[in-house]
Amino acid sequence: MRQSKLFTKTRREAPSDEVAKNAQLLVRAGYIHKEMSGVYSYLPLGLRVLNNIVQIIREEMNAIGGQELIMTALQDKELWSRTDRWDDEKVDNWFKTSFKSGGETGLAITHEEPLTRIMTEHISSYRDLPVYAYQFQNKFRNELRAKSGIMRGKEFLMKDLYSFSKDEAEHKAFYDKAREAYMRVFSRVGIGAQTYVTFASGGIFSEFSEEFQTVSEAGEDTIYIDEGKRIAVNKEVCTDETLAKLGLERNNLVEKKAIEAGNIFSLGTRFSEPLGLSYKDEAGAEKSVVMGSYGIGPTRLMGIIVEILADEKGLVWPEGVAPFVYHLVSLGHDGDEISKTADALYTDLAQKGISVLYDDRDLRAGEKFAESDLLGIPHRIVVGKDAVATGEFEVVNRATGAVEKMPHAKLVG
Amino acid sequence: MRQSKLFTKTRREAPSDEVAKNAQLLVRAGYIHKEMSGVYSYLPLGLRVLNNIVQIIREEMNAIGGQELIMTALQDKELWSRTDRWDDEKVDNWFKTSFKSGGETGLAITHEEPLTRIMTEHISSYRDLPVYAYQFQNKFRNELRAKSGIMRGKEFLMKDLYSFSKDEAEHKAFYDKAREAYMRVFSRVGIGAQTYVTFASGGIFSEFSEEFQTVSEAGEDTIYIDEGKRIAVNKEVCTDETLAKLGLERNNLVEKKAIEAGNIFSLGTRFSEPLGLSYKDEAGAEKSVVMGSYGIGPTRLMGIIVEILADEKGLVWPEGVAPFVYHLVSLGHDGDEISKTADALYTDLAQKGISVLYDDRDLRAGEKFAESDLLGIPHRIVVGKDAVATGEFEVVNRATGAVEKMPHAKLVG
Repeated sequence: MRQSKLFTKTRREAPSDEVAKNAQLLVRAGYIHKEMSGVYSYLPLGLRVLNNIVQIIREEMNAIGGQELIMTALQDKELWSRTDRWDDEKVDNWFKTSFKSGGETGLAITHEEPLTRIMTEHISSYRDLPVYAYQFQNKFRNELRAKSGIMRGKEFLMKDLYSFSKDEAEHKAFYDKAREAYMRVFSRVGIGAQTYVTFASGGIFSEFSEEFQTVSEAGEDTIYIDEGKRIAVNKEVCTDETLAKLGLERNNLVEKKAIEAGNIFSLGTRFSEPLGLSYKDEAGAEKSVVMGSYGIGPTRLMGIIVEILADEKGLVWPEGVAPFVYHLVSLGHDGDEISKTADALYTDLAQKGISVLYDDRDLRAGEKFAESDLLGIPHRIVVGKDAVATGEFEVVNRATGAVEKMPHAKLVG
Repeated sequence: MRQSKLFTKTRREAPSDEVAKNAQLLVRAGYIHKEMSGVYSYLPLGLRVLNNIVQIIREEMNAIGGQELIMTALQDKELWSRTDRWDDEKVDNWFKTSFKSGGETGLAITHEEPLTRIMTEHISSYRDLPVYAYQFQNKFRNELRAKSGIMRGKEFLMKDLYSFSKDEAEHKAFYDKAREAYMRVFSRVGIGAQTYVTFASGGIFSEFSEEFQTVSEAGEDTIYIDEGKRIAVNKEVCTDETLAKLGLERNNLVEKKAIEAGNIFSLGTRFSEPLGLSYKDEAGAEKSVVMGSYGIGPTRLMGIIVEILADEKGLVWPEGVAPFVYHLVSLGHDGDEISKTADALYTDLAQKGISVLYDDRDLRAGEKFAESDLLGIPHRIVVGKDAVATGEFEVVNRATGAVEKMPHAKLVG
């Protein structure tokens, strides 16, 4: 796309009302807009990044048998009362409102209840199991404070997958596959090296849940990492008893600040029992379905990527999530030879379906480079006098600063 | 995908709590789930249809220069107060709630206000105009009654595009392009022949708005159609004066029930003035931006397609929006020759990337055909004894009932 057509503008100054690095940079670069505290819109470049993250997660969820659906924001009070999660005394972050037609409703904080009810209409026999269903849907959480930018919003996008299995063994087999799929997601979005499977508190039906914690000074959690085994323990459960169970030595652990990038959770029959989700087994006996839940927030993940990879010059996107792979920067003016050379390269790249943002604006080189650094597109192709003279283009890697010379044919090929 | 893996089941009986044909059929076929009155989840087959509709609209909006973004559900009371659309006396279908951190908020009924505010940060000069921005985002409307299935929900998906232009002439040029793009959308989703540009009431800044009305007995509107000119007039504005202005003769008009499938609206400076969206023109004078809004509800469109095209046997999807293009129905049992032939054909179709749902379940032929008719996939490939014997497969067109014989190579080719 031509940058002269892109409606968003960048800003030199960080917004004064943002303390989180991710929000400061994303607002400055025109990727997001803050509507209110903890409530952000995604502008064209930001939506492209978000959609790339969503697509990576979708591919990994499909690969382990996930079926995509989409549920609603508005929730049925009666349903949530049956699992005792409606009362504000029990769950303190609902947004609640009411229907003009009568009755209260709330905005989904999560979706175990509605999906379990849907499954009661589709699961009745062991032949119908297992089922894995997921969605990308907004969650709403009425947080008192919101100071982590898009990493903790009052309205945010969540991928939530739920598993429905016959028994603990079938559940466990999928749970292990989901863990692997999650690590592939973190690796593909560029934060695999900094992300650890982390044991955390489990709940009624399992001793531990597993978090995926990404090491960062911006993190709200403290974890203890065994680098050799590449696993960690959340501070909240890091007792001698836990370490003994996990076969970890306290001496081998390093304390770090970290951000939770995802989690997987065994739910047992916590929801299937009160909501009547059962099946007939091979012997004709009625049994409750065993469930698990698996969450990753794509908007939070986008914030984490910024926290981990951005530098003093601005955003730095890995190729897999970048809004464009190439930033073609023309230093020409008013239809001169440089502009013509850049136009021709843009046309050829676009025709090949190569993902490119073309800075075709008539601005000073310094201004263009500073803005290009802020936008964080992985590869910058510079078209100046040299390129016209030699036929070779300077290609600068945003992350490493490495410079390579490449001819038109190689770029387009 | 293998139907044995699809978690949704179909039902023989229509749900007793639905009066609309679209909701009855979509619930029976397992495409949607009713959470509450006017609030529907989209199950895997339904989401596939919805995504196809979304993609068609996206392509047409991009083709006329639209830039995609996504705004939020939670809305800023202060912003909407400035345009006098917050007060329940003025707008009667808000869902309102409040932040724990203090202050009221509401769920977006539409998005003129937040997008206009976003644009004040990106538009300042005539050089920044025009801008066309759109999103696919849920709207929430606190309707007293909901009896039209997914055609009128309390929570529903909307594509809303907004145009920002220098003056009326620039606005009008885009408005005309948007009308053409809308007609291409209706044509591509299979309801072009039944859909008419319809003049309706305009508001303060333009005499008329234009609706896109699809003729259907399920419609809530009454329109008067001039078949020769392929335009219509909404009953609410169908006066002698209007007809004279539009050059229409009352004698040539036919009265029909119709459903509003979209609308385009000139907004003038209704929002840019109170929200301070202005630009400096070539002479340095400060002027208000001229706006337009352009809406299509993909969920409503899905409902309309069902109302128009479904028959007594079930759903009928046009190829462009169908969840799958082929329904491969095997009449084999337990690994017999028929099953093997069907398996081989499925593998080849899937490898070619051809969109196919494979009914690999061990059920009676009559049951499978009835369910196939209900699902409404455009082309049914039947694999029975004949196919094994002759090497030719019967391909049945769901809409017309036409039967064709095709060899494996031609289907896969």
